[in-house]
Amino acid sequence: MNEQQNEIPAQSPKDRGSIVKVLAPATVANLVCGFDVLGMCLHEPNDLMEIKLLDEKKIIIISADGYPLPLDPAQNTAGAPLVEMINEMPGNIGFEVTIHKKIKPGSGIGSSAASAAGAVVGANHLLGNFFSKQDLVRFAMFGEKVASGVKHADNIAPCIYGGITLIRSIHPLDIVPIPAPELFVTIVHPQIEVRTSDARQILRKEVLLKDAIKQWGNIAGLVAGFIQNDLALIGRSLEDVIIEPVRSILIPGFDEVKLMCKQAGALGGGISGSGPSIFMLSKDEPTAIAVENVMKEIYNRIGLDYHTYVTTINQTGVTIIDN
Amino acid sequence: MNEQQNEIPAQSPKDRGSIVKVLAPATVANLVCGFDVLGMCLHEPNDLMEIKLLDEKKIIIISADGYPLPLDPAQNTAGAPLVEMINEMPGNIGFEVTIHKKIKPGSGIGSSAASAAGAVVGANHLLGNFFSKQDLVRFAMFGEKVASGVKHADNIAPCIYGGITLIRSIHPLDIVPIPAPELFVTIVHPQIEVRTSDARQILRKEVLLKDAIKQWGNIAGLVAGFIQNDLALIGRSLEDVIIEPVRSILIPGFDEVKLMCKQAGALGGGISGSGPSIFMLSKDEPTAIAVENVMKEIYNRIGLDYHTYVTTINQTGVTIIDN
Repeated sequence: MNEQQNEIPAQSPKDRGSIVKVLAPATVANLVCGFDVLGMCLHEPNDLMEIKLLDEKKIIIISADGYPLPLDPAQNTAGAPLVEMINEMPGNIGFEVTIHKKIKPGSGIGSSAASAAGAVVGANHLLGNFFSKQDLVRFAMFGEKVASGVKHADNIAPCIYGGITLIRSIHPLDIVPIPAPELFVTIVHPQIEVRTSDARQILRKEVLLKDAIKQWGNIAGLVAGFIQNDLALIGRSLEDVIIEPVRSILIPGFDEVKLMCKQAGALGGGISGSGPSIFMLSKDEPTAIAVENVMKEIYNRIGLDYHTYVTTINQTGVTIIDN
Repeated sequence: MNEQQNEIPAQSPKDRGSIVKVLAPATVANLVCGFDVLGMCLHEPNDLMEIKLLDEKKIIIISADGYPLPLDPAQNTAGAPLVEMINEMPGNIGFEVTIHKKIKPGSGIGSSAASAAGAVVGANHLLGNFFSKQDLVRFAMFGEKVASGVKHADNIAPCIYGGITLIRSIHPLDIVPIPAPELFVTIVHPQIEVRTSDARQILRKEVLLKDAIKQWGNIAGLVAGFIQNDLALIGRSLEDVIIEPVRSILIPGFDEVKLMCKQAGALGGGISGSGPSIFMLSKDEPTAIAVENVMKEIYNRIGLDYHTYVTTINQTGVTIIDN
């Protein structure tokens, strides 16, 4: 288990009854031209979770604030990964998970991934880090399957590894951390729900080769820009000719937000995950705040409720905040 | 002109009648998962070209060794770029180009690009580097149009810039140099001709989205591997699920060469450009030679004539060797 890459330092397993608290952060999947393969971890917002080690093979899910989460572990995005995890552990162990859900499901900033990743990172901490990060991603993907029917890792991987991650391959799992400059991220979440499964269904199964070539030129440019701290190249590469033209139709105000945010100084951005949230990258905080103001002005005018966040890239991922 | 990025140091223009000699190197386009966007410059083989500055608006093409090149400048891969170049220059200037063709047309290692790039770099030297590298790529692409009907830059750009280049976009032209470790390159050129235009025609115009996703995960991994000197990641990312399965059918022995070269220690490789040459990357010279021996053994057994080269990445591109 822990012999794999990205090992987490092993510790003694905690006693039965021990509780750990974790902050499970929001993430931006796809990053415009990296559909299904790129993701980025944010400092805000976060789910807060408490995980307790039990002495029986059982998963208990508790919604702390009355949010209507499925309480059957197999149907819960935090529960399903833990079911997989305890099936790979010897002995009678289980977990009780209390979830303070702060990241709204269906927002497009990795709500289900936060629950899944927070659960497995917290549980692994209680087990003395028995499993590797790659194992944790593998378990957490079962939560995504519950949420959207597909075991994708583009939110899970950055939530567990922190920073920006490339999922080069799912079978076999190959996660590549991509170093990036300290960028600011502005998010607007217009209060309409876009279900990941619906957002997947409207995509065509085939794409034009010439569009695919444009897309792989852009993702190559984006990765080179991130690693080499080339902000202009990052900006030029944040272009999606395949997914965005289809999915942006589901998001009122999208084209205007994108255009005006870039005019306000954003490097670029687009749909966060499958939407409806929109993210924009900026080189500094004043620009990120100017971008936020543009977003507010547009959704005030459209008359749609929204939340905004101005945050930064979270290099740590899920954080243990209390033992 | 020279105010653009990648400026070449300006010099005084040479006198009419001056001659420059250039070495115009072979290049590997596509690099497996970067169809139409990635290319790599080699130290060998090279075309040798002599370019003479004339005092009339005229392009003269001379084939030094009787190789049957088209002598009409507009139909010649070295001539067409120079026609474009002199049309953007004031005054009565022209060039006489003598070509010692060493890189066989139709080999898949950038024969037409070498002629085009060598011509424009040499001519620009005689003009005191009036034009930027990006201008030179723009001119040289007219040579590719003559050769294959398409103005692609994936051989031209590395031939002019050296090293590995990403052509993120053709319109507008956006060339991104990709730093890479000092790798060894083994090439085998089985002596069959695959015309670029034929190799393009057998490609489907549409590809499965799931294959395109795999491809952009791989190119992102390859670029990250090159920049971060991660040889294992480079190896894992050298996978092409879209072009290679179709084009490799045109190359006898391809699957066996690829499999056996990797068993001999190559990081990976595939079709060079549109073939029939096959390239393999290795971490050191002994491995590159072992890979060459595998290639020789296979084509000796198949009974097909071939050439092999063991070389390295050429960071300079077209080189002025004599004034």
